[in-house]
This record gives sequence, structure tokens and C-alpha cells, in this order.
Amino acid sequence: MSARLEAQFAFLNEADRLKSVMRATTLCDGSRRENSGEHSWHLALYALVLADQAAPGVDISRVIRMLLIHDLVEIDVGDVPIHSADGKAHSSTSVQEAESRAADRIFGLLPDDLAQDLRALWDEFEAAETPDAVFAKSLDRVQPVIANLQSGGGTWIEYNVTAEQLESRVGVKIAKGAPRLWDWVREKTRGYFR
Amino acid sequence: MSARLEAQFAFLNEADRLKSVMRATTLCDGSRRENSGEHSWHLALYALVLADQAAPGVDISRVIRMLLIHDLVEIDVGDVPIHSADGKAHSSTSVQEAESRAADRIFGLLPDDLAQDLRALWDEFEAAETPDAVFAKSLDRVQPVIANLQSGGGTWIEYNVTAEQLESRVGVKIAKGAPRLWDWVREKTRGYFR
Repeated sequence: MSARLEAQFAFLNEADRLKSVMRATTLCDGSRRENSGEHSWHLALYALVLADQAAPGVDISRVIRMLLIHDLVEIDVGDVPIHSADGKAHSSTSVQEAESRAADRIFGLLPDDLAQDLRALWDEFEAAETPDAVFAKSLDRVQPVIANLQSGGGTWIEYNVTAEQLESRVGVKIAKGAPRLWDWVREKTRGYFR
Repeated sequence: MSARLEAQFAFLNEADRLKSVMRATTLCDGSRRENSGEHSWHLALYALVLADQAAPGVDISRVIRMLLIHDLVEIDVGDVPIHSADGKAHSSTSVQEAESRAADRIFGLLPDDLAQDLRALWDEFEAAETPDAVFAKSLDRVQPVIANLQSGGGTWIEYNVTAEQLESRVGVKIAKGAPRLWDWVREKTRGYFR
């Protein structure tokens, strides 16, 4: 049992470093940038509270688990802001390859059974094809929109984002998993982009 | 639907403030104190990874939900360190009453059904009587021990904590929900308190 616990804590202690990975998005009060650890907590809480926005059959407990681990690869790769490099960096092949190597290393710290389970869950999130992953991705995209609305523009100002770019880079993915939510949030953004 | 979403986001935006509530415990690398938002994320990850330490019948998905919301009352009350005021502040009547008022206010931001569900879950955590709550409390107590071990003493130095105080304030509660885990962690702490 001791070797198993050593491996579990090798992973949990490594995960602590996610609290030092900074995102482009700020807290709602604009006081500082958000880190990826607290972001992951907030997203899991989004899933808990916005469960009624998910498609029938979505398993919210699995969505929460996905969101708890979805950003761990940023310990090695850092956060790649969605609007950086004219919106092209986030889904680039080089970033995806680096994230896959990070997943090998970080989930590989765990005992084999847990490593396989959590790696499969992360792969499912990244592929964004199952209903659970599609809803998790929608929440991951909507939370920075809300933070920007709360803080007076946030990363939209920093990256000169237009309403059309918001729709194509963010809105489409929110709408895929949570269409009514995007309808409601998009209305809120009109005041900003008008 | 719009009024419901307004209430859901009144809660989610208020919850953002937990990222600005600072705890006594530092990050594992000792670089700064931890905030209660990222702490809540780390604990939920503990539950996911240490599920095999729970008693039979514990529902890990419920434990994760408890841990996601367990510290929200600190938005109003702040974090009360376990070793502060010679170990007496944390469970004082005045702190418990303030936390209960905070729960009224914060969960009260939600639509009624969600407010009742999450308040009941928080009450269950606080009462620490059900197997799910007992395990959640064990994780909440063990994570600062691990952080102190990683950072070279942390709050044990700050509050002059002895091995006996660690056992009575912390160890007993870890052992209640995760006895094998406390056996293993206590061995690690011997090097520090020797």
C-alpha cells in the first residue's frame, strides 16, 4: 500500500503547481489574473450549478471530474489564451503535442489504474466528442466571458477581440454544449461590443 | 429561464471571491499562502485520487461536491486556521454562527431548489456524521499536513504546534475517515517533530 500512496501523492503534490500557472483572464473584480487551479475549481462549481443547461443524458459527476483535471497539462505547457496569436495558438499542432507529452508525464505519476482512468478522461475532454466532454468544453469557454463581463472587458481589450471573433472562437463552442446559455450570455455581451 | 440564470450567476460570480480568501497554509513550494478557491480544487482532486482510502459505501461524487462548496462561507467569515488561538477558534460557537449566517446569504443567492440542495450538502459536511462527510473532513484535514511536510514545516512553525497537538486537532479527524492514510502520513511527520 505504501508504494501506491507514494505514487498518489507524487501526483497530488505535482498538481499543486497548477496554482502557479497564470491565465490571461482576471478575477471578476479585476484585481489580478486568475490561476489555473482556482479556475478549475470555479468551473467544477459551474457544472454543479448549471447542470440544468446540459443536454439530456450528460453525467454531471463525470463532467466535474473532467473539469478538475482538464488543465493539469498546463503545469508543463502553460496556459495558451484563446485570443492570443489572432486565435490560432490555442489549437495549434505544436501546443497539442506538448500537452499530450505533459499528460504522459503528469498522469504517469499515478498508480497504473488511476493513470489510465484519468488519462482516458482527459483524452475524452480534449477530443470534445462525447456529450459529457462537449458540455465541459462549453463551461470552460463561458467562464472567461463572464469574468470579462464582470471586470469591464478583460482579455477582449487586451487582444482587441471583436463580436465576430467572440462568436467564432468562443460562442460556437458554448452553443454546442449549452445553447440556451450562450443565447443568454451573448445578449449580455452586446452591451460591451456595441 | 432568464431569472433562473440571473440567480445562478449571482451565486457563481459571488463564489469568485473565494479566490481572494487567504489561508494560513502555503503552496507546497512555500512561495505564497494558498487561497480557499484553489484549496477547494486541490481537495476535490484529493477525493478523486484517494477514493480507495474511503470506507465502503462512500459516494466519491458526493464527497467531491461537498468539497467544492465547503469553504464558500469563508467569503464572509474568512479562513480560521486550525492551529490559531491555541486550537480553540476553529470550532468556537461564534465562528459557527457566523458561518451559518454566511451560508444563508451565499446559498440564498441561488434558485430555491439549488439553494436547498447545496445548503443541505454544506450542513451535512459541517455536521461530519455521514460517511461521505467524515471522509470529506479527513481530506480537508490531511491536505495542510502534506503542504506543511512539503514546505518544511509551514503553519506548524508559525503556531508552535507539537506532535500531540497535531494528533488531537488533526490526526484524530483524518483517522476517523481515512485511518490507513493517517497511519502513513503520521510516519512522515515523525521526522519533522522528532
